Amino acid sequence: MNQDVKPRAVVLVSGGLDSATCLAMARAQGFDCYALSFDYGQRHMAELEAAQQVARALGAVDHKVVHLNLRDIGGSALTDQSIDVPTTPTCGIPVTYVPARNTVFLSLALGWSEVIGAQDIFIGVNAVDYSGYPDCRPEFIKSFEQTANLATKAGVEGKSFHIHAPLIDLTKAQIIQAGVRLGVDYGLTVSCYSADEKGRACGECDSCRLRAEGFITAGVSDPTPYLKGA
Amino acid sequence: MNQDVKPRAVVLVSGGLDSATCLAMARAQGFDCYALSFDYGQRHMAELEAAQQVARALGAVDHKVVHLNLRDIGGSALTDQSIDVPTTPTCGIPVTYVPARNTVFLSLALGWSEVIGAQDIFIGVNAVDYSGYPDCRPEFIKSFEQTANLATKAGVEGKSFHIHAPLIDLTKAQIIQAGVRLGVDYGLTVSCYSADEKGRACGECDSCRLRAEGFITAGVSDPTPYLKGA
Repeated sequence: MNQDVKPRAVVLVSGGLDSATCLAMARAQGFDCYALSFDYGQRHMAELEAAQQVARALGAVDHKVVHLNLRDIGGSALTDQSIDVPTTPTCGIPVTYVPARNTVFLSLALGWSEVIGAQDIFIGVNAVDYSGYPDCRPEFIKSFEQTANLATKAGVEGKSFHIHAPLIDLTKAQIIQAGVRLGVDYGLTVSCYSADEKGRACGECDSCRLRAEGFITAGVSDPTPYLKGA
Repeated sequence: MNQDVKPRAVVLVSGGLDSATCLAMARAQGFDCYALSFDYGQRHMAELEAAQQVARALGAVDHKVVHLNLRDIGGSALTDQSIDVPTTPTCGIPVTYVPARNTVFLSLALGWSEVIGAQDIFIGVNAVDYSGYPDCRPEFIKSFEQTANLATKAGVEGKSFHIHAPLIDLTKAQIIQAGVRLGVDYGLTVSCYSADEKGRACGECDSCRLRAEGFITAGVSDPTPYLKGA
């Protein structure tokens, strides 16, 4: 196969389970994958180290970490030390919601896409997040795609951008099953909102609960190192 | 007048002529203005110092500088030292276009708006830029507004965001005339793409040419310290 003819895609890779699966799917669809992560003032750096390992393991041709301090803006338990990460289920939009995060991340993915001549961007949002985070909904993704085509030189020149959200209708268990088929090593990924510096998961936050339940439902053994619970 | 009842607006302030005028207009419309600037790897810092002075002079209640290295992404003469800033007029989209810049900046303005409870964002894009930069067009602004309302907790809760682009249909001369009426001190602003460390303008780049012609057409004396030309 001629490597030169592969189209390029920018894939948002957080170091978590969903984006790792998304990267594996983009590769399986025949894209040369350019992984993009953000150092945005997360509580822990284990996530970014996981992103590097995931990008390497899944054959990304490049991996870029953009520094962007969302702590400057504040407003979320994930970036603001004064807001606690909840350990019991909450109703409505959770405090771990980072204002406009996916809009910011997709915008930067769009910028990088233009520079490298990619017209495809992959983001691992899914149906479970959809219930809580507004920027994980299909109507948001569709609207961002329209904005992207109006925003860019490439769009003006008639090259359409496509925002792929291949996990959007999948349950956590279906995501895990798809990833296992594509050879994703979930032992490399970190989903926990409060992981320690070694990437060990708290076992108590929303994200840990969803992940643990996903492995059980999928019938796949869970490689996650939990500190307690889950 | 009761300060407490004023609605809040986030205003993108670059340190240039257009955004200073935009800030003056937002204040004149009765908003408490939260100025937002970006340290995005510009060639010179004079622009950011000008942004601080402009925000202070025009009564912004807060001014935030978000650090975001667009050099990580590259692709523009404004952020990539290997691409020269042109000194003669060019056709089509200029090399000073920064991929997806306004999308990125508006996304971060959206995030801050949510945190401070603002529903109004002002951006100083105008008709002159419109001819060259895709993300200065009215259809882009409208599309971003729709995306913003789908992207956010506030949008889901029925609080609409409004993206104001009050300069969009104005010529440079009309912008200057409006700013002068609102008391903008254009001596504080820096428009040049290649200003020196003291904020002195090259007098030769597209931005300098547009600015100098604007003052002449407006019949307003030009306070810009040009190094040559203009």
